[in-house]
Amino acid sequence: MAVVDLNSDLGESFGNYTCGQDSELISLISSANIACGFHASDPLVMMNTVREAREKGIGIGAHPGFPDLVGFGRRNMEVSQRELKAMVLYQIGALQAFCHENKVKLAHVKPHGAMYNMAGKNPEMARTICEAIGELDKSLILLAPSGSEMEKAAKEIGMPFAKEVFADRAYEDDGSLVPRGRTGAMIEDEDEMIRRVITMIKSGKVETISGKEISIQADSVCVHGDGKAALKFTARIRKELVAAGIEIKSLKDII
Amino acid sequence: MAVVDLNSDLGESFGNYTCGQDSELISLISSANIACGFHASDPLVMMNTVREAREKGIGIGAHPGFPDLVGFGRRNMEVSQRELKAMVLYQIGALQAFCHENKVKLAHVKPHGAMYNMAGKNPEMARTICEAIGELDKSLILLAPSGSEMEKAAKEIGMPFAKEVFADRAYEDDGSLVPRGRTGAMIEDEDEMIRRVITMIKSGKVETISGKEISIQADSVCVHGDGKAALKFTARIRKELVAAGIEIKSLKDII
Amino acid sequence: MAVVDLNSDLGESFGNYTCGQDSELISLISSANIACGFHASDPLVMMNTVREAREKGIGIGAHPGFPDLVGFGRRNMEVSQRELKAMVLYQIGALQAFCHENKVKLAHVKPHGAMYNMAGKNPEMARTICEAIGELDKSLILLAPSGSEMEKAAKEIGMPFAKEVFADRAYEDDGSLVPRGRTGAMIEDEDEMIRRVITMIKSGKVETISGKEISIQADSVCVHGDGKAALKFTARIRKELVAAGIEIKSLKDII
Amino acid sequence: MAVVDLNSDLGESFGNYTCGQDSELISLISSANIACGFHASDPLVMMNTVREAREKGIGIGAHPGFPDLVGFGRRNMEVSQRELKAMVLYQIGALQAFCHENKVKLAHVKPHGAMYNMAGKNPEMARTICEAIGELDKSLILLAPSGSEMEKAAKEIGMPFAKEVFADRAYEDDGSLVPRGRTGAMIEDEDEMIRRVITMIKSGKVETISGKEISIQADSVCVHGDGKAALKFTARIRKELVAAGIEIKSLKDII
Repeated sequence: MAVVDLNSDLGESFGNYTCGQDSELISLISSANIACGFHASDPLVMMNTVREAREKGIGIGAHPGFPDLVGFGRRNMEVSQRELKAMVLYQIGALQAFCHENKVKLAHVKPHGAMYNMAGKNPEMARTICEAIGELDKSLILLAPSGSEMEKAAKEIGMPFAKEVFADRAYEDDGSLVPRGRTGAMIEDEDEMIRRVITMIKSGKVETISGKEISIQADSVCVHGDGKAALKFTARIRKELVAAGIEIKSLKDII
Repeated sequence: MAVVDLNSDLGESFGNYTCGQDSELISLISSANIACGFHASDPLVMMNTVREAREKGIGIGAHPGFPDLVGFGRRNMEVSQRELKAMVLYQIGALQAFCHENKVKLAHVKPHGAMYNMAGKNPEMARTICEAIGELDKSLILLAPSGSEMEKAAKEIGMPFAKEVFADRAYEDDGSLVPRGRTGAMIEDEDEMIRRVITMIKSGKVETISGKEISIQADSVCVHGDGKAALKFTARIRKELVAAGIEIKSLKDII
Repeated sequence: MAVVDLNSDLGESFGNYTCGQDSELISLISSANIACGFHASDPLVMMNTVREAREKGIGIGAHPGFPDLVGFGRRNMEVSQRELKAMVLYQIGALQAFCHENKVKLAHVKPHGAMYNMAGKNPEMARTICEAIGELDKSLILLAPSGSEMEKAAKEIGMPFAKEVFADRAYEDDGSLVPRGRTGAMIEDEDEMIRRVITMIKSGKVETISGKEISIQADSVCVHGDGKAALKFTARIRKELVAAGIEIKSLKDII
Repeated sequence: MAVVDLNSDLGESFGNYTCGQDSELISLISSANIACGFHASDPLVMMNTVREAREKGIGIGAHPGFPDLVGFGRRNMEVSQRELKAMVLYQIGALQAFCHENKVKLAHVKPHGAMYNMAGKNPEMARTICEAIGELDKSLILLAPSGSEMEKAAKEIGMPFAKEVFADRAYEDDGSLVPRGRTGAMIEDEDEMIRRVITMIKSGKVETISGKEISIQADSVCVHGDGKAALKFTARIRKELVAAGIEIKSLKDII
């Protein structure tokens, strides 16, 4: 039976600031990427979010980002490899404390925002992130785009890796994402998004922007919960996947 | 044979800012309280400090503080018990990541500055801190003043506790520290400091500010490395303890 | 003709985090207390908020708070008088830059949250805040509760002062607010709130919690825009004041 | 008579962290670039530094940087033009508050670190910074390298501009600095540094890395105070300039 994970960012509130619709979203996904206090979240939000994720039985992942709260971790920063390693270790460790408190095991790590984008293309950063994760716990799964430098680095190191796909993004012939901004980069029709995702999961194929059919492995689909429309589409995609006979499971039960 | 631990704060540098004389101090102490990024330090400093402490073979402790970098964690903050618990868990977890990276076990926790002072007198805060530590790892030792609320809370919970004494502070008849600012609160003569510490360790006694002799248990002596005079005194106290037949060992080998 | 100012906090969003309903609220008030980046806001939010306030023609005030973003400036902090002075000067100066950019004059200062509450009762803090404001610009109006230590300090220094009243709070016989948490501290009936406010403005009187009638001067009423109910009540109070023949004007046109 | 300004960064301490040797350095320079709390400094350090600079009668400048305290503002950040404008306005305004408190006028602005380097090569950033400064006060002098994009932007806008030269850096034939890391980029011989600076000031010429003689205008020489060697060289360069008949004056008395 076909199986896939649905992952989403969770726990991005900060102090008095609420962000996202975590309480609705948490029932729709199978893995949560929980912010670790550098680009979003704070210790109390993390503590509450880990407890809620454990109660729902979904997979818990660390979502480390650049130390840029005002920029939400979305601004590129030039950091040294040692700084990068230290900030990844620090954030994962901090989240693990709340996992220990809740007697649940951290399952995966997905870098956030600019760190995710930069490490997707930069082999040195990808390698550093993989090494940091591996030194903490060799069973931690790296969740990152299929075809990215992070996938290559994970393979080299021999660490568990989950391939993330996107419903709303077009693919190049080499399996990488068409950069945002290029014509055709975004899939905008919801029916088409769902058809594409189901095809990726069931047949392991996707049609690229050039019209070619390539192989793709979809371990996890990235979904969103910010705003009513996003939440509604996440609910729909979940329903349609199930209707298509696809089982939704956490990464830890797939990889 | 009499035995004692010498503990000091370490790893308080931050980014471009250097603080303390860690490279000299680290050879004189047996336990390091390593700042965790809230009142001082940053991920890279933490990574480097844990590695150096492991290389020297000294005990590694977490030194969590209030989120107040500009105030160095020395300003009292009113935080809720849940906020306190979350900030303690977060900081210890972050430091544990570097311990994992270095394949060394975190040995103890000593709260910093205003958190240390407030929790020393506030039973609710003391209890919260003890619970947070215990939920992470039941073998973690809490290092705090003999006679403080933290000692009481640790006893109630049944967690390992190390009694910290001070060479330069006078004691009340009930074993608590004479508050700074009161006449006689500070011991200023170095010879007297050393005599007092040796007596505390060897005979388990100290003369209080009123002249009475009370029992005191000295598991660890707090020493300093900020400034040449402090460093010199730390070197001297170490030498005199050894000369008096007292063995200097890490907390993990004492408690 | 009776006249009053309606003040509210504005510009409390931060980076990716939206807070409040500024676009609706800004049309209902006559003075905005704009956060300055310590407890909320960031430079870009400040720049946008000052421009919008100028476009609406409402009075612009600085809303300095403690450096505690995660606590939204609501946690008491023990800071020295020099630290307090410096943090007030810094924040007002930062906001003045955006006033200069928009060729509009800063009209008033209202401390935020824990700073507002602490300085309301602490004569030394109140004095320090008044001095800081006066050294920047002698025409700046301090907006603070009638009967507070800030009012006393402003009088001593001889600086412009606007008396703030609250629709939803009960008053003691000495004109101070009944502390939250005491029975009867909060007025909960909306009709009563409006009656009380109109009486304060038109007759300069208020019935205290003990049933006594005392004099009170209402220069400005504090209103809120966080949440639909708050916004709706603010719209209502504005309408009822106007219907009662009270003119709504900015502080700079009243004091 | 030949005249030049000596500028240095000042007030980079932060909370408990001391940085630089401001008390010695301040007597050797004629203009201080004072950090504004984003890459270094805090409100209290700024308040103290402005007062000391005014007491010495030296020119006071704002030294805005990226919001990156842990990276000391030295890490490139991708920020939007509106974010850049807002962060420059905010920081200058904050420093101006302390100038007002001390009844002294802010004289100049020199961006710091990565912001200085990026804006030196990026016309859009240079333009944004110039516009922000001009909107605050048209008499503020921008201090930046001769031949940089900041010089071009300042000329276009018609704002006061001071050309900064470096004793320890080689120049290209087009008047720009040879990038660090290239062979010959750094002048290392102190006697040669001093000869070069005196020639730049007195004859308006410098020999480039290719051996060509080009025109250069030296309004201000950048000197340092971090470390004993730097401080000693700063003292020497000051003495040698005076001995060569060059008068040392603040920017405000030169431009």
